[in-house]
Amino acid sequence: MIEQEEGGTRIVIEGVKPEIDGGQFSIKRIIGDRVVVEADIFADGHDALSAVLLYRRESDPNWTEVPMEFLVNDRWRGSFVVAEIGRHRYTLTAWIDKFKTWRQNLAKKAEAKQDVSIDFLEGAHLIKEASQHATKRDKQTMQGWVESLHSNKKRKSTKTKLALSDKVAALMVKYSDRRFATTYAKELAIVIDREKARFSTWYEMFPRSCASEPGYHGTFKDCEARLPYISEMGFDVLYFPPIHPIGYASRKGKNNVSKAKSGDPGTPWAIGSDEGGHKAVHPQLGTLEDFRRLITKAQEYGIEVAIDLAFQCSPDHPYVKEHPDWFRWRPDGTVQYAENPPKKYQDIYPLEFETDSWRNLWEELRSVVVFWIEQGVRIFRVDNPHTKPFAFWEWLIGDIKQDYPDVIFLSEAFTRPKVMYRLAKLGFSQSYTYFTWRNVKWELMQYLTELTQTDVQEFFRPNLWPNTPDILSDYLRDGGRPAFMIRLVLAATLGANYGIYGPAFELCENRRKDTVSEEYLDSEKYEIKHWDIENPNSCRSFITRVNHIRRENPALKSDLSLCFHSVDNEQLICYSKRTEDLSNVILVVVNLDYQYKQSGWVDLSLEELGLVPGQSYKVRDLLADATYQWQGRQSYVELDPQKIPAHIFRVHRDKLPRSNRASIIM
Amino acid sequence: MIEQEEGGTRIVIEGVKPEIDGGQFSIKRIIGDRVVVEADIFADGHDALSAVLLYRRESDPNWTEVPMEFLVNDRWRGSFVVAEIGRHRYTLTAWIDKFKTWRQNLAKKAEAKQDVSIDFLEGAHLIKEASQHATKRDKQTMQGWVESLHSNKKRKSTKTKLALSDKVAALMVKYSDRRFATTYAKELAIVIDREKARFSTWYEMFPRSCASEPGYHGTFKDCEARLPYISEMGFDVLYFPPIHPIGYASRKGKNNVSKAKSGDPGTPWAIGSDEGGHKAVHPQLGTLEDFRRLITKAQEYGIEVAIDLAFQCSPDHPYVKEHPDWFRWRPDGTVQYAENPPKKYQDIYPLEFETDSWRNLWEELRSVVVFWIEQGVRIFRVDNPHTKPFAFWEWLIGDIKQDYPDVIFLSEAFTRPKVMYRLAKLGFSQSYTYFTWRNVKWELMQYLTELTQTDVQEFFRPNLWPNTPDILSDYLRDGGRPAFMIRLVLAATLGANYGIYGPAFELCENRRKDTVSEEYLDSEKYEIKHWDIENPNSCRSFITRVNHIRRENPALKSDLSLCFHSVDNEQLICYSKRTEDLSNVILVVVNLDYQYKQSGWVDLSLEELGLVPGQSYKVRDLLADATYQWQGRQSYVELDPQKIPAHIFRVHRDKLPRSNRASIIM
Repeated sequence: MIEQEEGGTRIVIEGVKPEIDGGQFSIKRIIGDRVVVEADIFADGHDALSAVLLYRRESDPNWTEVPMEFLVNDRWRGSFVVAEIGRHRYTLTAWIDKFKTWRQNLAKKAEAKQDVSIDFLEGAHLIKEASQHATKRDKQTMQGWVESLHSNKKRKSTKTKLALSDKVAALMVKYSDRRFATTYAKELAIVIDREKARFSTWYEMFPRSCASEPGYHGTFKDCEARLPYISEMGFDVLYFPPIHPIGYASRKGKNNVSKAKSGDPGTPWAIGSDEGGHKAVHPQLGTLEDFRRLITKAQEYGIEVAIDLAFQCSPDHPYVKEHPDWFRWRPDGTVQYAENPPKKYQDIYPLEFETDSWRNLWEELRSVVVFWIEQGVRIFRVDNPHTKPFAFWEWLIGDIKQDYPDVIFLSEAFTRPKVMYRLAKLGFSQSYTYFTWRNVKWELMQYLTELTQTDVQEFFRPNLWPNTPDILSDYLRDGGRPAFMIRLVLAATLGANYGIYGPAFELCENRRKDTVSEEYLDSEKYEIKHWDIENPNSCRSFITRVNHIRRENPALKSDLSLCFHSVDNEQLICYSKRTEDLSNVILVVVNLDYQYKQSGWVDLSLEELGLVPGQSYKVRDLLADATYQWQGRQSYVELDPQKIPAHIFRVHRDKLPRSNRASIIM
Repeated sequence: MIEQEEGGTRIVIEGVKPEIDGGQFSIKRIIGDRVVVEADIFADGHDALSAVLLYRRESDPNWTEVPMEFLVNDRWRGSFVVAEIGRHRYTLTAWIDKFKTWRQNLAKKAEAKQDVSIDFLEGAHLIKEASQHATKRDKQTMQGWVESLHSNKKRKSTKTKLALSDKVAALMVKYSDRRFATTYAKELAIVIDREKARFSTWYEMFPRSCASEPGYHGTFKDCEARLPYISEMGFDVLYFPPIHPIGYASRKGKNNVSKAKSGDPGTPWAIGSDEGGHKAVHPQLGTLEDFRRLITKAQEYGIEVAIDLAFQCSPDHPYVKEHPDWFRWRPDGTVQYAENPPKKYQDIYPLEFETDSWRNLWEELRSVVVFWIEQGVRIFRVDNPHTKPFAFWEWLIGDIKQDYPDVIFLSEAFTRPKVMYRLAKLGFSQSYTYFTWRNVKWELMQYLTELTQTDVQEFFRPNLWPNTPDILSDYLRDGGRPAFMIRLVLAATLGANYGIYGPAFELCENRRKDTVSEEYLDSEKYEIKHWDIENPNSCRSFITRVNHIRRENPALKSDLSLCFHSVDNEQLICYSKRTEDLSNVILVVVNLDYQYKQSGWVDLSLEELGLVPGQSYKVRDLLADATYQWQGRQSYVELDPQKIPAHIFRVHRDKLPRSNRASIIM
């Protein structure tokens, strides 16, 4: 209930956008973005209002102020550009503008030729009051105006002209009376990231499978030799599954059989052994120094190395002995291993976050992150974050990013939608998505629209993966090479962030372990592979082309402009992305059918493409290197999955004929 | 940023519905309503959760608790019935339910025939822990279960049966461990009103025009004589424009001319003279005692008297001399009268809420409300609330309803949508709407859907008025008697709350003062009228019939179930309302064309009407007293505005044939 003390303020500020969950969470932007803020701002009565948008670095107590403009229906808008990474804040202030009110009323009365002599005195009074707070020079100017409005010698028209002049308005804005201003109750937060948080091209690779010859355990040095290959394809993030010592107890064998044979390397996610835990490097990969050198070398190729944060332990992890209180013990004196009844994962001990020692546990895990940051890592892929408390992640990510605002966290939470969104809200920079299983047109359209055209886009940055070491989808299994090409184009053009698990992907590996799971046959998770990367059937050159198109076309570096267009064939999907200034417009058509040629008529929203009806335009296919002259909304397309299953067009507007230009200006 | 101290809690409660503006405002319900609350409730990991909904009277610190049930996609639902008027609170609590988790896992493992011997020990441990907080008797029972689960003599199947039994589950719910429960951060508020806040039938009348013979000033005694007329028509709220002394200074003459002639009575909204202010009665109407007697008399006819709260003054109001600081003074020593440049209202002085003495002003206005409550008034129509501060109304209404929870405030704010909604949110029980100007099908559908089928319905109770003393719409002016009948049916069936300004309405008064405004010719606002209420062309009997239908059919007593159905004719509008249990289903078809007969096919959403495809049903027209046998979605309708321009059907389901009943059960 309202207190009488609030009687002085009359303004309501509500419906602020963007604002996530009543301001509980930050919105996300990248450096250089223009942050546009809108709000409903209104008061009782008919007085004129003024409003400003305020913003600041979180660590800087001083606000910068920009005026807001009135739109319609009590809606106001303002914007600012953020030029620094890190946390920022924004809020709004609005006030009853007595001078603006007076000025508007005077104009109406003057036009109706009413007596305004008392109005002049009222205006003079307002100017005099404002002048009390003015600089010496402005004060003098304002006093001159006060005298003019009081003067009996000046004519009504002269006074009116003065009262309505821009110079008077400008100084009255400068010294506006904000004693009863209303400031929005919340200081909303923005996390500003570097560009890679929004636009990144990931390549996941098991370093142990990189040896130049079969039968050897790959090393970080072998990875160095693989850098040109990865860089040429156009990837800029190289993500490694866990690189730590692997446990021996209950180690899984090839194809996930419960007992490993001698020599089986085990899964890298069973972290920790006598050789060390989360801060150690698996000896067969090399040394910590080798790893640091790989990071440096990768930078020369424009590649950042990302590692896996998998907060779980093998039974041999040093934590088990050193911190038994971080695990859950059963009545028979054993540690509770991971299970999802009736499934059992005896080679993995989850950490028990409900332990009384959770403060130590949190601090230790934070120190793991800091350790790898100190080795040069700035991107972390986080394994199963949804099985650790939300509060832990919110604290960890907030804390790390305060010291290292350039760090990027990718959430690998293939779980229920609200849990995925919560993880994104509380701080993850990017998130895996359901894209992996969305294959038909309506579900792709519905899902990508939800991700990019609703409030979700304020906090959730999708990272689209056609495959992962855990997931060989039915579509890829069944569709072979055309399916891999289709899914690649979709991931790379629907998602400014996307990634593949290679070389399985470019080599179109599509053999499943069995008919019930999505597991690869002879999964790299349980054995060392030797991939024939020079295989002539590799999609390598196609991927290279697509990634080149991504780099060259700024429209593809964000998901915010994604717009779907109609096609009269359910197997063809059509969408566009564009830069805000329309200088770069990309139109994509993909045949979702990996078997048959499909054709149809696209029906384009011309406005989305920056075109006007009647204007002809060229579309240049950046994949096939062919140019077509189109006109109007409808065009015929035909795509053969056995050749190239997609068009990636760049749209070039022709110059408008004179007659049309006139009609646009109107 | 999260504090480490929150490390113990793992549950998120969000997306709570209903919740207005993050809990800033109350939702509204009436006594006996079932309040349904939903929320997204989830935690990390795969543990099972339990959740309860809590509610209490605001003045009672003790919560009542009801279990919530899981729906789908992390959504939970609970509900409770409120049996008392006044402010109530509700919130939610959820916790990780370790026993439920254990029970679910045990069931899966047992089904997979896995070894569960250690699981029994874990379950025993959970039961033992819970038993520490149990009553002596329950503790004994639970200790027995602990022993059974530990016992080597019991068979696995016996232990499993015990562990999964309902009796164990029930006691474990009773003593569930809520130490780490998460309680929703907000205690959301509900205002519970009496039924009239949702269902009311208003009749606005100028008491001074009620004299039995022309040429006399009507009195409260004359109003008493009018009560049978109003009651017979079926109205239950009789609303009077201001009944206070009227000012003489700058008094307006007939048809709003700026200088009154001698004997002109002035407008009742120019409140105050030497004869008194807002707490006085206009002497020509009678005495305060007469007014109180009228209230009592009206009650005998089932009618409540509502008065106008018009917080403004004539220049002669005692406040002007006693409290000059409550007005705005101009530099020439005069008080600022109301103006909306270039329009001037010299007979009205607005109160200056920006005065330094606003506390006194607020208290005085509160005392005005209390004064009339003490005379027996419980319903107030508030004039132009949007020209007084929001904070004032929030305080006033909150404060009054704390002492008098049965008071109803109707907001007369014909202004911008966000301002109207704000006034409703901050406490007004009912609100005037744009219905007055919504005449064509799409705009009626769009607007009523917004009011009744979105979050707006949580706080905004529409009160639909086809006319007011200020507004004679184009539609009524042009359409004559059929238009009045059409607008009456729409108002009375679209709005559970509706009202008319009579006798102008029932007598189909449609003469405009001029072509530029919506003012009546010879408006009753500026002169005393003598209405010929016995005129045979009166719509009186039609109104009587419609109001009778409203009273007899509970479906029409709420707007929440409003649903529009398709008709293949833009001049025909079709909609239904129903009770929750489908025992009363009303289907309305209105011809919006006051000139011509219109016909078409309605296409009904059968499910909304509680019907199944293939089921035949009767529709009884309660206006024409005719019954039709219908079947399926489509039916032909034809309405002649010169006869009866609407159907108000009650839908009666026939008994289902046997075959269909089976298919429904499936």
